[in-house]
Amino acid sequence: MLQFFEHPGIRLKEEAEMVDQVVIGVDFGTLSGRALVVRVSDGAELGTAVHEYEHAVMARSLTADQDQPLPPDWALQVPADYVSVLKNAVPQALRSAGVSAEQVIGIGTDFTACTMVPTTSDGTPLNELPQYADRPHAYTKLWRHHAAQAQADRINTLAHERAEPWISRYGGFISSEWEFAKALQILEEDPEVYQAMDHWVEAADWIVWQLTDNYVRNACSAGYKGILQDGQYPSESFLRSLNPDFADFVSSKLDHEIGQLGHAAGTLSARAAQWTGLPEGIAVAVGNVDAHVTAPAADAVEDGQMVAIMGTSTCHVMNSSVLAEVPGMCGVVDGGILEGRWGYEAGQSGVGDILAWYVNHQVPGEYAQRAQERGLSLHELLTELAAEQAPGAHGLVALDWHSGNRSVLVDHELSGLLIGQTLSTTPEEIYRALIEATAFGTRTIIEAFNASGVEVREFVAAGGLLRNPVLMQIYADVIGLPISTIRSAQGPALGSAIHAAAAAGAYPDVRAAAAVMGGRIREAYTPNPHAQRIYDELFAEYTALHDYFGRGGNNVMRRLKALRRNSFAPAGQDLDQDPDQDAGHDAGERAAQEGAAS
Amino acid sequence: MLQFFEHPGIRLKEEAEMVDQVVIGVDFGTLSGRALVVRVSDGAELGTAVHEYEHAVMARSLTADQDQPLPPDWALQVPADYVSVLKNAVPQALRSAGVSAEQVIGIGTDFTACTMVPTTSDGTPLNELPQYADRPHAYTKLWRHHAAQAQADRINTLAHERAEPWISRYGGFISSEWEFAKALQILEEDPEVYQAMDHWVEAADWIVWQLTDNYVRNACSAGYKGILQDGQYPSESFLRSLNPDFADFVSSKLDHEIGQLGHAAGTLSARAAQWTGLPEGIAVAVGNVDAHVTAPAADAVEDGQMVAIMGTSTCHVMNSSVLAEVPGMCGVVDGGILEGRWGYEAGQSGVGDILAWYVNHQVPGEYAQRAQERGLSLHELLTELAAEQAPGAHGLVALDWHSGNRSVLVDHELSGLLIGQTLSTTPEEIYRALIEATAFGTRTIIEAFNASGVEVREFVAAGGLLRNPVLMQIYADVIGLPISTIRSAQGPALGSAIHAAAAAGAYPDVRAAAAVMGGRIREAYTPNPHAQRIYDELFAEYTALHDYFGRGGNNVMRRLKALRRNSFAPAGQDLDQDPDQDAGHDAGERAAQEGAAS
Repeated sequence: MLQFFEHPGIRLKEEAEMVDQVVIGVDFGTLSGRALVVRVSDGAELGTAVHEYEHAVMARSLTADQDQPLPPDWALQVPADYVSVLKNAVPQALRSAGVSAEQVIGIGTDFTACTMVPTTSDGTPLNELPQYADRPHAYTKLWRHHAAQAQADRINTLAHERAEPWISRYGGFISSEWEFAKALQILEEDPEVYQAMDHWVEAADWIVWQLTDNYVRNACSAGYKGILQDGQYPSESFLRSLNPDFADFVSSKLDHEIGQLGHAAGTLSARAAQWTGLPEGIAVAVGNVDAHVTAPAADAVEDGQMVAIMGTSTCHVMNSSVLAEVPGMCGVVDGGILEGRWGYEAGQSGVGDILAWYVNHQVPGEYAQRAQERGLSLHELLTELAAEQAPGAHGLVALDWHSGNRSVLVDHELSGLLIGQTLSTTPEEIYRALIEATAFGTRTIIEAFNASGVEVREFVAAGGLLRNPVLMQIYADVIGLPISTIRSAQGPALGSAIHAAAAAGAYPDVRAAAAVMGGRIREAYTPNPHAQRIYDELFAEYTALHDYFGRGGNNVMRRLKALRRNSFAPAGQDLDQDPDQDAGHDAGERAAQEGAAS
Repeated sequence: MLQFFEHPGIRLKEEAEMVDQVVIGVDFGTLSGRALVVRVSDGAELGTAVHEYEHAVMARSLTADQDQPLPPDWALQVPADYVSVLKNAVPQALRSAGVSAEQVIGIGTDFTACTMVPTTSDGTPLNELPQYADRPHAYTKLWRHHAAQAQADRINTLAHERAEPWISRYGGFISSEWEFAKALQILEEDPEVYQAMDHWVEAADWIVWQLTDNYVRNACSAGYKGILQDGQYPSESFLRSLNPDFADFVSSKLDHEIGQLGHAAGTLSARAAQWTGLPEGIAVAVGNVDAHVTAPAADAVEDGQMVAIMGTSTCHVMNSSVLAEVPGMCGVVDGGILEGRWGYEAGQSGVGDILAWYVNHQVPGEYAQRAQERGLSLHELLTELAAEQAPGAHGLVALDWHSGNRSVLVDHELSGLLIGQTLSTTPEEIYRALIEATAFGTRTIIEAFNASGVEVREFVAAGGLLRNPVLMQIYADVIGLPISTIRSAQGPALGSAIHAAAAAGAYPDVRAAAAVMGGRIREAYTPNPHAQRIYDELFAEYTALHDYFGRGGNNVMRRLKALRRNSFAPAGQDLDQDPDQDAGHDAGERAAQEGAAS
C-alpha cells in the first residue's frame, strides 16, 4: 500500500511532468458506460469512448430465462456488463486520445445510484452462480427498480413512529429506490437468495472492488442511499421491528470501510490492469455517484453553488457548511459531495422525460414533417417555435408532475396538470408551458433551500438539457438568477477523472483539482427583467396550484391514481402498471439528450 | 290572406290525399343551406340537396374590398348567398325526390341565430346598396361575430344595476352574439350605417320575408336573442342609459309583428315561386332557429324531454309548463320552442370543437398513418382506441372549457384543464377524457335544471356527434339516463318541414305533426351500472374542479387570459386575438361531423 490510502498532501509538480500525465474517468450510466481521458495539468479532454451494456435494462423478463416474466416495476442489470465497459471503453478511449497507458496515473468512476449488487464474500455477483441464474433477486437492482415501494412505505412509517433521528436528513422519506428497501424486498420475497448474499454492494463500490480487489464503501452513496448518518446505520432494533429476520442486516451484509470522496480506494489490480490495458498499481479513486461527481467537473463545490444536472430528470447537488432540514430534499450527507462539507441533494423526477413524453405522444405529424424537411429534431422545431412566444402569451400553466414530485413534496402519487387551453392553443405553446413548469419546479426547490437557511448563491447547469439555449434562458428568467453552465460536455466522466487526479495525489484535494481541471461559464444566461416580472406572476399561479393539488387542498390526483389502479384490478395482478412505462422512460432518456440539441 | 295567418284547426285528410303531399324544409347553416323534401303523411325523407354559400364566412376581409381587413372577432355574411340556396338547393332536392312541384303544400326554414341583417324599409340588405358595399357594418353579422363584447358587457352591467326583470330570463347574461349588442356596435362604430338601417332583421325572418314579402318576426329568436319577454323589449329608458342615440332602437328598427312557431308567415310570393320552382301561394312557415326546430324532428316536444343538438358545440332545448330561473341557462321563452310552453335553452360552447382541436393539434403523425392505412378518420381511430379503455383507467379528468363555458357558468374567460397526466398517458386516453368532460358538462346542466324544478325526464340526442356510438354510450353512463336518438340524419331540415306541414294546415299543430313526421329511437343507449358508478366518482372530481376554477376558488384562468392579452399589447391592437381562431372553428365544425362517424 502506497500513499494512496492516505489523504494526499500538496505535491507540487513540474509543469513538464504534468503535461504528460492523464487520468481516466469512467461514467456508468443506465444503458452504457463512457470512458474519458483527461489531461491532469489543465483538464483537457483528450479522448473518449462509449460501450453499451449487452443486457441493457431487464424490465420484462430475465435474460437468463425468457419464460419468466418479471413483475411490474422491476429493473435489473447484469454486473458483467459493467466489466465490459472497463475492457472496451477504457482502451478505446486511450487510443482515441493518442496517449500511452504509461501516462495514466489514476482512474475514477461514477455510477447510477442506488444500484445494488448482491454478492458472495469475494464480490462475485449471485447471478453468476449457476444455481441462482434464474432467480430475479440474484441480479443487480437498477436505481429505477421500483418494486420495493411496500418496503419503503413500512420503513418510512416506522421511522416516523419511532422518531428516528435520521429520517429528517432525507426530507422525511426513504425512497423505494434505496438500499434498505431493496434489501428488505429480497429477504421477504426470496429468503434463500438473501441468505446466500454475503454483501449488498452499491454498484459504484462493486466496480471499484473489481478494479482494486478492495471493497470500500463511498461516503456519498452510503449517506444518500444507505442511510448512514453520523457514522451509524439504522439500529438493529429498528430493523428488527421491520422484520425480525432483518435485524442483523447491517452487521451481516454491510461489512465494509467507508472511503471519502477523492481518496484512493486502492490501486489497480493485475487483473484489472489486464482488462483495461492500464498500468497495474495506479490510483483508483473511491466510487462516486454520477450527479454528485459533476459538481467538481463544473468547478462548483463552494457553499451555495447549486449544480443542477438536467436531463431525463434533474438532480440538484450543493455544498454547505450549514446543517439544516430542507423540506423535501433527497438528503443531506456529511462529505456527500466534498469531504468536510454538508452535501445537499434535491431532485425533480421528471424534466426531459416530460418533454419527451409530450413530443412522442402529443405532437401532430405535420410538425414531424416540417422538422424533417428542415433537418431538425421535433424538439428543435418546437424549441424554435417556443422561442418566438412572449412570456405569458400562451395563457397556460402546467404542473411538472407527470412522473410524480420528488422535491419538495416527495409524492409519487401526484400527476401532471395543464390549465388554460383554448381552441387556438398550439403544440409549441404547450411545449413552452411544460418547459416553464419544470423551471418553476426548480425555483420551488431553490426557494425551499433559501427559506431553510441554506442559501443558493449561484445556479450552475449541467446535463443534456444544457444544449437547449431557449430552455436555459427560460430557466434564468424564471429563477431570477444568472445561470452558469458547465464547460465540459462530459460532466460525470470529467468529475470522475478529477477524483482520480486527487486520489493519485496530483492535487491536494478535489477542490484544488476542480479549480484547474473543472470549469464553468459564468453567467452564461442572465435573467431578462421583463420576462422575470411576468414569470413572477406565473410562478405565483404555479405555486397556488402546487400547494392546492400537492398539499391536500384537493387530493384529486391521488384519487385518480387509485381509480386507475382499481380499473385494472379485475383483470389480474397488473395493478397500476403500464407496459409502456419502461419504454417511455428509455425514450425519455434518449430524448433528453436529443432534445437538448440547440 | 288565407287561413295561414290563423292558427290552423284540425283538418283531417284522406290517406290518398296525404300520400301525395310533400313539404320542404330548408336548414340555413354556417357555411351552406340544405333543402329536404319530406312526405307529409309519414315524414319520409324523399330527397335532399345542399348549396354552399359563395362568400362563406368573411372573417378577415370584406369580399367587396380585399384591402380592408376586418378587426378580430368579426364574422360577416352576404344575404344573397341565402337566396342562392332557395334558387339551387330547393329545385335540386325536388328533382332528387322525384316529386313534382305541385305536390308541395308548404315550405319551412330554420337558421343559425343570432344572425342579423341590416336592411332598408323594403328588406334590401344594406350591403347591396353601392354606397355601403365597402362598409363592414352594412353586412350580415353571423352568429359567431364576437366583436360586440364591450357592448354586451355594458348591457349586462346596466341590466343588473337597474335590476331589469328580463335579465334573469337569460341566466343573468346577454350574449355578445345577440341582437342588441350587435346593433349597439353598429351605432357606435358606424352611425351612418345605423341611420341608414330601417330594419334590424334576424336572418331567420329575412329569408321568410324574401319568400313571402311579409316581415314577420319569429317568437323563438325574438325571445332568445331579441330580449322580448312578456311581450316587451327592453325599455327606452334602459336603452337611453346605454347610449342616448340608442333610445329609440326598438321603435325605429324593430317594427314588426310576432309570428308563433308553426304558423304561416304568409304564402309563397310570385318572385320566390320563380326562384324555387314551387307553386305560388303555398304556405310559408314562420322562421325558426336550427336548434329549436330539431325538437319536433325528434318528436320530443313534451315537458322534460331535453333535446341536445350535439356538434361543434351543443345546444339543449326543452319545453316545460313551469317557469323557473335555471342558473346559467341561455334563456327561457314563452313559445320559444312550441306555442304555449316555456321553451328552455342551455348550451355548451365547446364539444365537437374540443375534440377537433385535440385531433388537429395534439395527436402524433403515427396515429394519422395508422388511421389512413385502415381507411379511418383520426376521430374514428381514437374512438376505437378509447372504447377499449375501462372507465377511470386513464386516471384523467378534464374541464371542457377550451371555448369558455356557456351553461351553467356563463363565463368565456374560462379555459381548458387536464389533470392526471403521467409519462405513459396516451393520446387516446386524453381523447376519452375530453369526451367524458363534455359529458360531465351535460350532466352539470341536467342537474341545474333538476335542481331548479324543471325536471329532465328524457335525454334525446341529435346532431353530428350522434354518429359516434362510443361517445353516446359514455354520455349515457355519465348522465345516468337512457339516451333516445333522433331518427332523422337531417334534424333541422326535417323540423322545418314539420313546421311547414303545420303551417299548411296538414296537421293541427306542430306537436301533432311531430308525432307523425318526427321520431326518435327510445333508449338507444342505456347506462352501464358499473361504468355509471365510476363516473359518479369522476363527476364528483369534475364538479370540485368546476366549482374551484369556475366559481372563484382560484381565478387563475381569468388571470392567464389577461396575461395573454397583455403579452400582445405592446405589438399593437391585436389584443387577445388569435388569427387561427376562425380557422379552428371551421375545422371544428367539419370535424364535428366527420368525428361523429362510427
